[in-house]
Amino acid sequence: MADDALVIFTPSGKRGRFALGTPVLTAARKLGVDLDSVCGGRGICSKCQITPGYGEFPKHGVTVSHEALSEWNAVEARYKRIRGLIDGRRLGCQAKIQGDVVIDVPPESQVHRQVIRKSATARKILMDPATRLYYIEVAEPDMDEPTGDFQRVVAALREQWQIADATIDIGLLRRLQPVLRKGEWKITVAIHRDHHGTTRVIDLWPGFFEGQLYGLAIDLGSTTIAAHLCNLTDGSVVVSSGLMNPQIRFGEDLMSRVSYVMMNEGGDVEMTSAIRTALNGVAQAVAIEAEVDPKLIVETVFVCNPIMHHLLLGIDPVELGQAPFALATSDSLSLGAADLELTSINPNAQIYILPCIAGHVGADCAAVALSEQPDKSEDMVLIVDVGTNAELLLGNKDRVMACSSPTGPAFEGAQISAGQRAAPGAIERVEIDPVTKEPRFRVIGSDLWSDDPAFAAATAQTGVTGICGSGIIEVIAEMRMAGLVDASGLIGSAAQTGTRRCIPTGRTNSYVLFDGTEAGGPLITVTQGDVRAIQLGKSALYAGARLLMDQLGIDKVDRVVLAGAFGAHISPKHAMVLGMIPDCRLDKVTSAGNAAGTGARIALCNVASRASIEKVVKRIHKVETAIAPGFQEHFVAANAIPHATDPFPELAAVISLPDISFNTHNAETGTGGHRRRRG
Amino acid sequence: MADDALVIFTPSGKRGRFALGTPVLTAARKLGVDLDSVCGGRGICSKCQITPGYGEFPKHGVTVSHEALSEWNAVEARYKRIRGLIDGRRLGCQAKIQGDVVIDVPPESQVHRQVIRKSATARKILMDPATRLYYIEVAEPDMDEPTGDFQRVVAALREQWQIADATIDIGLLRRLQPVLRKGEWKITVAIHRDHHGTTRVIDLWPGFFEGQLYGLAIDLGSTTIAAHLCNLTDGSVVVSSGLMNPQIRFGEDLMSRVSYVMMNEGGDVEMTSAIRTALNGVAQAVAIEAEVDPKLIVETVFVCNPIMHHLLLGIDPVELGQAPFALATSDSLSLGAADLELTSINPNAQIYILPCIAGHVGADCAAVALSEQPDKSEDMVLIVDVGTNAELLLGNKDRVMACSSPTGPAFEGAQISAGQRAAPGAIERVEIDPVTKEPRFRVIGSDLWSDDPAFAAATAQTGVTGICGSGIIEVIAEMRMAGLVDASGLIGSAAQTGTRRCIPTGRTNSYVLFDGTEAGGPLITVTQGDVRAIQLGKSALYAGARLLMDQLGIDKVDRVVLAGAFGAHISPKHAMVLGMIPDCRLDKVTSAGNAAGTGARIALCNVASRASIEKVVKRIHKVETAIAPGFQEHFVAANAIPHATDPFPELAAVISLPDISFNTHNAETGTGGHRRRRG
Repeated sequence: MADDALVIFTPSGKRGRFALGTPVLTAARKLGVDLDSVCGGRGICSKCQITPGYGEFPKHGVTVSHEALSEWNAVEARYKRIRGLIDGRRLGCQAKIQGDVVIDVPPESQVHRQVIRKSATARKILMDPATRLYYIEVAEPDMDEPTGDFQRVVAALREQWQIADATIDIGLLRRLQPVLRKGEWKITVAIHRDHHGTTRVIDLWPGFFEGQLYGLAIDLGSTTIAAHLCNLTDGSVVVSSGLMNPQIRFGEDLMSRVSYVMMNEGGDVEMTSAIRTALNGVAQAVAIEAEVDPKLIVETVFVCNPIMHHLLLGIDPVELGQAPFALATSDSLSLGAADLELTSINPNAQIYILPCIAGHVGADCAAVALSEQPDKSEDMVLIVDVGTNAELLLGNKDRVMACSSPTGPAFEGAQISAGQRAAPGAIERVEIDPVTKEPRFRVIGSDLWSDDPAFAAATAQTGVTGICGSGIIEVIAEMRMAGLVDASGLIGSAAQTGTRRCIPTGRTNSYVLFDGTEAGGPLITVTQGDVRAIQLGKSALYAGARLLMDQLGIDKVDRVVLAGAFGAHISPKHAMVLGMIPDCRLDKVTSAGNAAGTGARIALCNVASRASIEKVVKRIHKVETAIAPGFQEHFVAANAIPHATDPFPELAAVISLPDISFNTHNAETGTGGHRRRRG
Repeated sequence: MADDALVIFTPSGKRGRFALGTPVLTAARKLGVDLDSVCGGRGICSKCQITPGYGEFPKHGVTVSHEALSEWNAVEARYKRIRGLIDGRRLGCQAKIQGDVVIDVPPESQVHRQVIRKSATARKILMDPATRLYYIEVAEPDMDEPTGDFQRVVAALREQWQIADATIDIGLLRRLQPVLRKGEWKITVAIHRDHHGTTRVIDLWPGFFEGQLYGLAIDLGSTTIAAHLCNLTDGSVVVSSGLMNPQIRFGEDLMSRVSYVMMNEGGDVEMTSAIRTALNGVAQAVAIEAEVDPKLIVETVFVCNPIMHHLLLGIDPVELGQAPFALATSDSLSLGAADLELTSINPNAQIYILPCIAGHVGADCAAVALSEQPDKSEDMVLIVDVGTNAELLLGNKDRVMACSSPTGPAFEGAQISAGQRAAPGAIERVEIDPVTKEPRFRVIGSDLWSDDPAFAAATAQTGVTGICGSGIIEVIAEMRMAGLVDASGLIGSAAQTGTRRCIPTGRTNSYVLFDGTEAGGPLITVTQGDVRAIQLGKSALYAGARLLMDQLGIDKVDRVVLAGAFGAHISPKHAMVLGMIPDCRLDKVTSAGNAAGTGARIALCNVASRASIEKVVKRIHKVETAIAPGFQEHFVAANAIPHATDPFPELAAVISLPDISFNTHNAETGTGGHRRRRG
């Protein structure tokens, strides 16, 4: 009988021969198999669960007998009795190799497991968190060899986990001696290892700590703060929460906040304080909702635009409000919770803020790049993150360009006569019959169209309250397709369009989308001003894309990714009818959902991704729309629907737009269009 | 004519050939000559002053003509006019090489200059501070290559000073943008580079900053806080200040402070707060006295015993009060001012705390080792730092041992009937005539002996108030030499000694050192209890030294260094008569003054010394007196004056002690002596 045996691990396929009696965990470590353990093989943590396979494995050329592993032992029995263990599972640190064996490592036992995301198009996250738990046995103090208790903790980490040079904050050092003695020199430590090689003790508990560690991925938008509480072991999003950015009271859009700072002594301090208070609140709220001790939140990743970035850091953003839009700092930041006054999470929690790309293209755009990886794309991809400003990334594995385009707040429903934020009751989808010119629509909160007999009942609670960002794009695109709006953007009169829904409003016309006045509800119309606001926004967005295409010397993109919470709701067809995005096959226009938030989650769950996005960002070439000569030209040319200069053959293959002009019939307003085109 | 020339620098002797027209500063840098510059050769800072030599230099084999350097230029003229320049001096960045030349670098122009200390025995400090000023010109922001302002500062430091990877605290980052713009992209930065390779921007100023940087070396004793404000350019001590440790109100000695913590919930927090408040006060006081902006104090080095170390850090010292005397942390600490709530100095000031050697042997002892360098000694040296506890270092370049000995507070004048702190009016020197048994003495504040006719007038202001630590040692040693005290430590009666100054006090005798009662002053006596207290302290000190000698297997030391503020005042002869220290030639007993404070100053002024003392400390072998079996034996044997067992031939060669015993005449008290000897 041989004194060693063949061990094959699945799914990795790694294999090797080991002396009989070797614990499975030891064999896995020697082969570099990804098998978790917090207690270091002491039968305490149960993270190293494995499933041995028995019988014939022709693929691996091995037959596994039922004696291939040592017998079920007392440690395993006790664990199963107290905590439960799935049938067929063994603890890798207890089961010893007795013969040739095939051992499967289930996903839960892998440190670097992949997290399946709900959205089908989204890529997976490979778990590799910066902060993990380690159980250690610390040497007791010895008067003949006097060293500090912390130095013996460092030695235990080095000897038991090969973790070198751990440091500790003096606040936590205060707690070390009692915890060591309470745990009788056995403790669990949370260790944070960043991508620069710094190793920190973040927290410690006496004995074996049963809990889990959590992190926050926060997308700090001008309007909304979205926070995702993630389990740092399996990457799951435990709770997501969104709240309004409280800075809105200082100004709706970013530039008005910069103005506030310029006009008000200490205005930046007020805004920094407001955002930090809100962040503490949201951290507490998600922890309560998830029934998680907020002190177990040991990491936070932020993504945000440059102005929010500076205001979060407490830096006066005034330089970002004027050319040359200089950032105080552009690199990524690794901070402690105290640096940002985040008092509601673990006091030693580590903060990571992604790098900014330029004064107008922030860490949020870097997060989109991390999520969507244009730098790894084989085909030429345009990624558009639509928010109050639009950030654009264009490129492929050879080169990536970025710019920001001042689309204004119209796409978010602001500065639109009946505009409102995306909330129940807001019109989000619209169809207009090209023959009757009659609309039907859906509102947020109901799946029914407005021409469904059950619609009124289904929306009784919310009512129909206004039009949200995606709704305004759809209705104007539908108006164009139905011949209610001409190529210059003019809304026709009732006489010109043949529908009494077109009503005069001052010297221009409006389209009545919903008349709820009889029931005491609102009159929801699309005005000429609304069309102009959307035209300005879409021209800016399109001009930005064209500017990047010019820089790359291309006149066509292979695919378009719409990112941002708003991007998730835009109908690609309608966006292209309006000419928001360059011509592209409709099936090549996809939504990435909240890609910035996803990027934050990736950076939270995978520490190596931080180094990689930092490298990518340094290679992204930035174009400043404010000084690029081509931008203004493209902007003017993009005003029409469809554009004056650019052909849209891919779009034309699907949709034909009526060749109409209302100019002659309403010279005064039409001139406005002309005047803008000349600008 | 050659197109290059020979350049010889003195005092380094470095030489090389350089193209004509090369600035002297450039030549110095290429040769690695230690020539200072803050502005990087821009003719602003004047740190690179040099003195060219003209004429024959036979030693160097060169003749220097008066045309060897370019002519005095406008920059130099302007500098001389405004700031003044010593005749014969040139600015190294302005003067260009035109022919063979000998150039002297005066000490003020050397970065690594040596600081001459006042005390003749003390070694020199080589200047190599962690924090220095650098003048840089920063690239302006460029929209085509958008990087953060701080990233361009980092680039300037790398390109202009070869300083890589500078980091900045976000508090300071807030000030960066306005300072850059105010200085029109020229700024001066204070850079701290520690011995672990971390590089931090500590502060910044628009344009060229004319000021100097300062550091504090603080010896944080149980009783006294001594702070030295040092100029970080030339190492000079600008102001020294001492104040009482405010923790004294929680307990005179360290163990009573530990007891206070154990008995009072939050007692450690109170004490930490008291010491930090005092530190802020002393920092402010020295800055005001020196007329220095406290924000220019950019570094602080602390040395202290382990309990003060923990209380400074805010760590409960309870473990240090009981075996096994475990430190929370023993390694050196690099912290920020905020970590210790030092709000009165620069908010980004860096703190360095020397490593502790053991639970009883602190960072103060490490500082003594740094100052006195037993690890580099050729002969066997015993270093005794006498304070409330005594720390001992024994060894040579082969091996160094350390221990702490519980001498008690008697050496500081506490627990002595007429004892007092060293202050004007305290008796510090004593002589007793062996024939008449009459004493004469000197008090702090006057150079006159008490038998001088002018003494009364000279001390009229202070009076004679008590006996300080060095005085009590002298008087008891003198009493022993004059036959007033026998070998067991008993004070004889008037009948036994033949002097009426020996008076009965209860069942024992006292010696009247000074009777001021007629003038309403004090009666200052030395009681039997005083002799016993000193016997206990000296036995502990001697036993510690013997324990270390046993460990090294030696029975003789080559020399003894007395350290500590108190050590500076001890008379070696009297210390040896008492048997405080092992037998040694009297001329081999020296005082190192406040060696712990000197060690702190060295660590402050020379960053490389931090790495070196950390290495030395790791090699020092510690002996715990509390568990060493030999200690108790040595302690008991050392009670007598001279010792019962150890021969003192070196002492006997100088002084003979009367062979007397008062036991038979005063059996009751004598038994006390016997009893102790048996203990």
